[in-house]
Amino acid sequence: MNSFDGKQVLITGGLGFIGSNLAKELARQGARITIVDSLIPEYGGNLWNVEPIKGQVQINISDVRDQHSMKYLIQGQDYLFNLAGQTSHLDSMNNPFPDLEINARAQLSILEACRHFNPEIKVVFASTRQVYGAPESLPVDERHPLHPVDVNGINKIAGESYHLLYHKVYGIKTSVLRLTNTYGPGMRVRDARQTFLGIWIKRLLEGEPILVYGDGKQVRDYNYVSDVVNAMLLCATSESAYGEVFNLGADDPMSLRATAEIMTKLERNGRYEIVPFPGELKKIDIGDYYSDFRRIRSRLDWRPLVSFEEGIRKTVEFYRTNLSHYID
Amino acid sequence: MNSFDGKQVLITGGLGFIGSNLAKELARQGARITIVDSLIPEYGGNLWNVEPIKGQVQINISDVRDQHSMKYLIQGQDYLFNLAGQTSHLDSMNNPFPDLEINARAQLSILEACRHFNPEIKVVFASTRQVYGAPESLPVDERHPLHPVDVNGINKIAGESYHLLYHKVYGIKTSVLRLTNTYGPGMRVRDARQTFLGIWIKRLLEGEPILVYGDGKQVRDYNYVSDVVNAMLLCATSESAYGEVFNLGADDPMSLRATAEIMTKLERNGRYEIVPFPGELKKIDIGDYYSDFRRIRSRLDWRPLVSFEEGIRKTVEFYRTNLSHYID
Repeated sequence: MNSFDGKQVLITGGLGFIGSNLAKELARQGARITIVDSLIPEYGGNLWNVEPIKGQVQINISDVRDQHSMKYLIQGQDYLFNLAGQTSHLDSMNNPFPDLEINARAQLSILEACRHFNPEIKVVFASTRQVYGAPESLPVDERHPLHPVDVNGINKIAGESYHLLYHKVYGIKTSVLRLTNTYGPGMRVRDARQTFLGIWIKRLLEGEPILVYGDGKQVRDYNYVSDVVNAMLLCATSESAYGEVFNLGADDPMSLRATAEIMTKLERNGRYEIVPFPGELKKIDIGDYYSDFRRIRSRLDWRPLVSFEEGIRKTVEFYRTNLSHYID
Repeated sequence: MNSFDGKQVLITGGLGFIGSNLAKELARQGARITIVDSLIPEYGGNLWNVEPIKGQVQINISDVRDQHSMKYLIQGQDYLFNLAGQTSHLDSMNNPFPDLEINARAQLSILEACRHFNPEIKVVFASTRQVYGAPESLPVDERHPLHPVDVNGINKIAGESYHLLYHKVYGIKTSVLRLTNTYGPGMRVRDARQTFLGIWIKRLLEGEPILVYGDGKQVRDYNYVSDVVNAMLLCATSESAYGEVFNLGADDPMSLRATAEIMTKLERNGRYEIVPFPGELKKIDIGDYYSDFRRIRSRLDWRPLVSFEEGIRKTVEFYRTNLSHYID
C-alpha cells in the first residue's frame, strides 16, 4: 500500500499520540507531511514523538483556533487528518470554552477553509465514543442515540456534524471515526487526560498501585494505535468512507479489573487497588462501553490486528525506556 | 394562573416575535420583566413589539454574546426565558460563525453564569424542529434521530445539549422546547428568516402572489404564538419539565398549497404561484414535517388551542394595520 507516496498531507495534532504515529506511517509510505500542533502543555503534543522522523516532516507550531494559519496551511494539501482536539472530560466541565473553541469552532473554520480554498481535499476527523454517553444497549453501533455526558461530548458531536454537513452540502470528502480507548507508544501518561490507561502505565512503572475506580467491573474496549492509524488511512483513501461515520472497537472488550490484571503482570511488583470513584468523575461515568464496529469491517475491511495483551506489552516496554520524555 | 405575580423574569430575545408575546403575557400576570435584545437588524427584535407594555418592562439592549452583561443580568432572576437566537438557515451556511457564537457559545456562557451566580433559576430554552433534519418517519417524536441539514441545526443541538447537561450535572432547572413554525402578531415579515409564513403574509398584503416552492405538497405544522407562550410558561413552572425536551406541534398539519389556499382567501385579490425551489434552499429542504407532541400533552397537559385558520386570520389582521412597523 503506497497510496500516499508523494502526497501532501496535513496532520493537526501531529505531535500528539495518534497524530505522530500516523505521521511515522505516512513518512514510511513517502508522504510529504506537515504537522500542525499547538504544543499546549495540557494537551498531547510532544516533540519526542516525532524524533525518529524529524528530518522528514515539516513542523508548524500553531493552533487550530488560528484561522489565518489554518487557511494558509490547508491550501495545496491532498489529505487532512484532523486530530487536534481537547480530550479531557474534566477540563471541559471546569472551563467549557477552550473545549468549544477547539472541538467545535476551529473545526468549522477548518472546513470553511477547505470549502473556499481546497474543496478537493480529503479529510478524516477523529471523534470519540464519548458522544454516545452511557450506552442504552451493548455493543454500541453508529445508530445508537447520542447522549453526551459532558461538554466535551457535546462539542465533539458538533465537530462531527460539521464534517458530515460539509460533505453533504459542499461535497468535501470527509469521514468521521469514533475512537474508543486508544493506547500505545507516544500516549500521554502524565495524567488521565487522554485515557485512564496512560496514568495506569505511569503508576505501574513508578511502582505505585494502579487505581481502579468503582467496582472494577466496568467493561471497556481498547485499540492499539497502529490499528487506529490503519483505519484513518483507509478512510482517507476509500470513496465509500466519505460522508460516513465509523466506530472503531476491539474483539476483546474486558473489565477494568481484567485490564489491571493483565497490566500488573507486566511488572514484577505490579499491583492494583479498587477504590471509590472520585465525586467529579462519578458524575460523568458512563458504565459499561464496548462498540459494534461491523460497519467499518464490512465497508472498509478494517479490523484490529493487535490484541490488548500484545499491545499493552509493547506500550509498557516503550515507556520503560522513554518515560522521562513524557513526565519531565 | 398567577404563578408569575411579582416574579423576576429575564427574556433574551425579548423584543423579538415570541419573546415580546411572552413578555406581554407575563406583564399581564404581574411579573417584573427584564428584556435583553441586541436589536441586530437581521434578527427579530423590534421595539414596536413591546409598545403596549413599554412602561412595564425594563429593556436592556445587549447581546447574549456579551458575557459580562449576561452575567450581571442573570443574577436575582427567578426565571430565564432563553429565546435569543440566530434563526436563519441560509445565513448559517453563508457565514457560520455568528450562528455558532449565538446559538452555541452564548448558551454555554449563559449557563455558566446560572451555575456560578444563580443556580436556583428556572430556564426555558427555545429550540427548533430543525434539529431533526429530514424526517425518517412521521410524525416526528422526541426520540427521532437528529440529522441537522444546516449549521444552524448543528449549533441548536449543541445549545439544547448544554441546557440538558447543566440540569443533569449541576441541577439547573432547564427545559427545552422544539418549536415548529410559529406565527402571529409580531413575527418577522420582511423576509423568510424566521419562517416562510412571514414573507407570505407580506406578499399577500402587498398584492404580490405568495410563492410556494417545490410542488406545494410538502406538509408543515404551525403554532399560533399564544399556544407557544403557554407551553413556555408551563415548562418554567412544572417540576416534571426540568431536564426534559418537548416537541410542540399542531392537530392540523397541512400542505404548503393548502396553507396558501387558506391565506389567499383572506385578501380579495390574494393569489399564489407554485415555483421551482431556488438552488440554495433545495439543498437544505427537509421534505414533509409534522411533529408528535404527545409528550408535552401527557406530561404538562399542553395542547394548541388556536387553529391555523383562526390564528392566521388574526395575524393578517394585525399586519393590515401594523405592516409599516415591520418593513420600514
